[in-house]
This record gives sequence, structure tokens and C-alpha cells, in this order.
Amino acid sequence: MPPKDTHNEPTSSRPLRITALAGGVGGARFLRGLRAVLAGQSAEITVIGNTADDITLFGLRICPDLDTVMYTLGGGVEEAQGWGRREETFTVSAELAAYGAGPSWFRLGDRDLATHILRTKWLREGASLSQVTARLCTRWQPGVRLLPMSDDQVETHVLLPGVPEPVHFQEWWVAMHAAPLPTRFVQVGAERARPAPGVLDAIETADVVLFPPSNPVVSIGAILAVPGIREALVETSAPIIGVSPIIGGAPVRGMADVCLKVVGVPATAAGVAEWYGPQLLDGWLVDERDADTAVEGIPVRARPLLMTDVDAAAAIARDALRFAAEVRPLRE
Amino acid sequence: MPPKDTHNEPTSSRPLRITALAGGVGGARFLRGLRAVLAGQSAEITVIGNTADDITLFGLRICPDLDTVMYTLGGGVEEAQGWGRREETFTVSAELAAYGAGPSWFRLGDRDLATHILRTKWLREGASLSQVTARLCTRWQPGVRLLPMSDDQVETHVLLPGVPEPVHFQEWWVAMHAAPLPTRFVQVGAERARPAPGVLDAIETADVVLFPPSNPVVSIGAILAVPGIREALVETSAPIIGVSPIIGGAPVRGMADVCLKVVGVPATAAGVAEWYGPQLLDGWLVDERDADTAVEGIPVRARPLLMTDVDAAAAIARDALRFAAEVRPLRE
Repeated sequence: MPPKDTHNEPTSSRPLRITALAGGVGGARFLRGLRAVLAGQSAEITVIGNTADDITLFGLRICPDLDTVMYTLGGGVEEAQGWGRREETFTVSAELAAYGAGPSWFRLGDRDLATHILRTKWLREGASLSQVTARLCTRWQPGVRLLPMSDDQVETHVLLPGVPEPVHFQEWWVAMHAAPLPTRFVQVGAERARPAPGVLDAIETADVVLFPPSNPVVSIGAILAVPGIREALVETSAPIIGVSPIIGGAPVRGMADVCLKVVGVPATAAGVAEWYGPQLLDGWLVDERDADTAVEGIPVRARPLLMTDVDAAAAIARDALRFAAEVRPLRE
Repeated sequence: MPPKDTHNEPTSSRPLRITALAGGVGGARFLRGLRAVLAGQSAEITVIGNTADDITLFGLRICPDLDTVMYTLGGGVEEAQGWGRREETFTVSAELAAYGAGPSWFRLGDRDLATHILRTKWLREGASLSQVTARLCTRWQPGVRLLPMSDDQVETHVLLPGVPEPVHFQEWWVAMHAAPLPTRFVQVGAERARPAPGVLDAIETADVVLFPPSNPVVSIGAILAVPGIREALVETSAPIIGVSPIIGGAPVRGMADVCLKVVGVPATAAGVAEWYGPQLLDGWLVDERDADTAVEGIPVRARPLLMTDVDAAAAIARDALRFAAEVRPLRE
């Protein structure tokens, strides 16, 4: 953990600034808890959302992780599933299939489609993804400032053994159910991508930075692949607290273990913390089942991490903030 | 009626070639009758569809008249309404409205939207509207060759008294219910538009050309505004038979009378025939109520013209073909 300067020391004249990186379902549910904890307090939450899962299907630009955060925080998510719209219907998808138009593995809901139609329209009119996301959020009022990690297109592609062409992450994840094991992930476009407006500032001026229990490789990892973001995180004076997405050696949801295997990281709480490393993490929150986790240079704290409901997520978020205050005293 | 040469005189070695110009509902219903008449015969029907009603909404390219023909002949139309899809739902439209995204006056059905999504995707990929239409028709199998009048964008706009900017025809027609009376229609882009591939050939090599009872100003008139199409019609050796869209001084459906008023044409069967003129028409089929119609240079025949069902439309189409054979003998 490098020394961090303190020129951004918060003063009581401004709201507490919390900046969180986020993938999809796990990130969104954690954020909903975080928002609940901070309700009634003077606090601003900025979310830097992963956009490397984004994909263009049927000519429409789809941002699964931004939408999951937006729908979850905006009260429109299909709760049991964790993503997509509540009371969804699939009339358009059935019609697209009747035309023989593919792909069939990504079923787009009718309600969800309205979001993609508007996003695509506005992008084609020249709006940035940041601007589009802000416009969509005027409907959903997520209670956080939701920023894409970049306005430039970055897409995680997957190199598969014996397959000459890379496959889009979504196709491997959704259509192929994360099999076979990729030889490598490639964040196509990442090297030329710039952080979206506000992203670096949100990291630099934060009082606390949080890594929710999102996929460390293809969600948080993709955000870190945008040049400048990792550097800003290393340099910020804010404490960075991560919440382990691995409980008892298995991902809480999704297939993070498969992704970790690709990058040679053990699917354990300790493995993920070491993958982030002490340059980034000032504290690592693990599940009570992983209480014996020890990571060189990173303080670890254990508590139940299953986000069974909003209250559970809020309790985790509260402990993450307390943990942050202890590793590096916050305002007051 | 100018003399027409006979170098395209049909021979019995090829199918009868019927070419029809068409707008939306009236054209589509007439074509369904025509197809029924020719069922089991060696005949090819080419439809030159009006695309000047086309509009881009929510970033999607919508071709109302092509779709009405396609859905009607393909068995997917909402029969009572005459356009749009059967068993339609409006989930996406409701969501777009929830985003506050306009316009609200053009309600897009979910089933219909799939067509627009694919069309827009394929157009953006570089396919021509002809190619897109052919691809969409592989699903609908309309039993005719459906050609857009042009692959170039032509849009009918409306100049309204006291309104500085022209309004898209669809907005005036749908949102403003064809009021106030325009000072003028403008086919934006028509002067640079070229007939789509196959259009001129379909006119030149036709055995019969038909003008269904479509709007003579904004449907058939818009097709005639594409440079080269009127000339090809004047020069073809095929007899051209028109079916009056006006019965007893009123349009059968739509607001053709308003459109006729804008161009200074009486909303009568005779008025429309004179508007087309003897250079185009070799015969004019009017309703029995208009049996006294007389037009200089154009033979007129009267019969019931209400297309109450497919059989009624077929009977009209059969008489139109017979009329054509009499004004200019067809093969056998």
C-alpha cells in the first residue's frame, strides 16, 4: 500500500463522496444497500459502471451492466433474476426470431428494448454514452450518479481453444454458458479508451472508494483496464475497500470462478484480494466463512456477505464504510 | 392516349406480367384480390410501393406502405384496421413514453417494431431498401415481387399555412388528422431519386399495369414523382388500368379528398382520372354510383368498387384485367 497524500481531505462543508466501481447484479445490489445506508445523510454516490459487456445486437447498443444498475436502483428490475425488467414480455424477440434473424441466444425483453432503442438513437445523433446514460437516468432516478467507465467502445472478447476468431464475452457467457475455458480475455478497444468525463475526478476527490462484489476479472477488471483509472485509484487519498465476490471458494453468483481461472487466480477471497493487490486495496471485506483469509499488505475483515435482501446489502455497505473510516479516518 | 409500340407483345412462353403501383391499405387489399384472381395461372405480379410516407422515428426507419402491402399479402395484417400487425401489443411504445421520448402520436406496435429494427439494422449495414424489402418478404411470402419505388429517400412533407417549417406527411396525417389544409405537398428528395432496380423494367415489360385505388396524390402521385417512372408508364406498351379511389364523391378510406383539394383536383372519379390523364390511363374503373363518369380520352367502365372482402377485391381485379385486355389485347 503506497503512501497516499491527503490533499483531498474532506471538509464538513461538502457532502461525503463515495465512488464505487460496479459490474452487474452483485454491484447493483450492493449499491442499493449503500444508498439505503446513506439515505438522509449528505452524501454523493458516483458509480463507475463496466461497459465492456456492451454489445450491439439487431443494430441496437446494449449496456447490460449500466442497465442492471439503473433498473435495480430505479425500482424496475426483475428482482428474482437480478437483471432485466420486471413484468417483462418478449413479443419483439419472438418476431425477430420469426424473421430468422439472429442471434437467438440473447433474448431481448420488450420493456428493455425501449432503453436500447433510445440509447442507440441518441448515440447515433452524436450524444456520448455518458450523456445517454444521464438522460436514461432522468427516468429511473437511481439516486446515484451513474457514469460509464468510458465513452469509448470497449468490449471484452474471449479467445477460445481451437477457435480462430475471438468471441464476444456475452456470447461465451450467455450462449456457451462460459465453456470452454478461454485461453485469454481481450478488452478490445481498451488501450485507446479514455475514462468518461467525471470518472477520474470521482476517484481523485472521493472520500471512500468501494469495489462491490462484482466479477473481479470481466467487470472490475475491465474498468481497471481503461488507461488512467487504475493509476487514479493507486493515487487517490481515499481508502479503497473491496467486498469479496467469492464466498467459501465459490462465486456468489455468475461464473467468476471460471473467469479467475483464465487469469490464473485462485477462486478464493484471498486470491481475489491478491489479484487486486495492496496498491489498490486498503481493506478487504470477506464472508465469515473466509474469516481466516490473510493477504500480505491488505487488512481483512470478515462478516456475512450474502446479500439476501436490501437490509443485508445495507449492513454490508455500512461495514465497508466503517472499515474505510478505520483504515483511513474520514471527515469528522 | 399516345400510340404505344408493341415490341413487348407477350408470348405464351413466359408468365403474364402484371405491374401495380401501390400505396397502403387500399392498394394492399386490391393486390390481395389480384393475387387471388391469378392464383394457379402463370403470372408474375410486381408491386411498386410508395415509400414517400416513410419516416424515421426513434432512430428506426419505418415504411408504412411497404409494410401494409407485406403484412396484408403475408397474412399478418390487423384486418379490421387494414394496417399494422394482428394481435399487436404496445409494450415498447409505453416504455418509450415513460422515458418521455416522443413523438407520442405514432404508436409503434411491438410486432411491427421487429420489422423496423431489422430494416434499420440492414440499411445501416449498407443494404438497399430493395434488398431489405426482399429479405423481409422471405418471411411474409407475399406472392408478389414487392419493390420500393426508389432506394433513395423520398419523403412527402406538407407546407401548412402560417407554419414556417414543413411538417412530415405522417405528422400531418396521423397527429393532425389532415388539418389544416396544406398549401402544398413537397416530395423531399424526389428530384434526385432514382427508380429502384427492377422498377422501370417491370413497367416496360409488363403485360398490364394497374393503379389500385390508392391515394392519387400522396401514394400513386409520389411514385410518379420519381424521375423516370412517369416516363416509363407513358412509354410502356402495356395497357394501364386505374381503379378509382373515389366513390360517389368521397374517398373509400383515408383522406384522399383533402389531398386532392391541395392539388386543386375535384374529389370525383372523373377528377382523379383527369389528374392522371390520358397519357397514363388506358382505362378507368369507377364505381357503379359513378357510372356517368366521362373523361376525355380515357375509356371508363363502372362496377361495384367496395372491397368488402377478398372475393370483392378479386372481382374488381378480374374486371380490371378484362378491361385491360379489351383496350389492348393481351396474350391469348
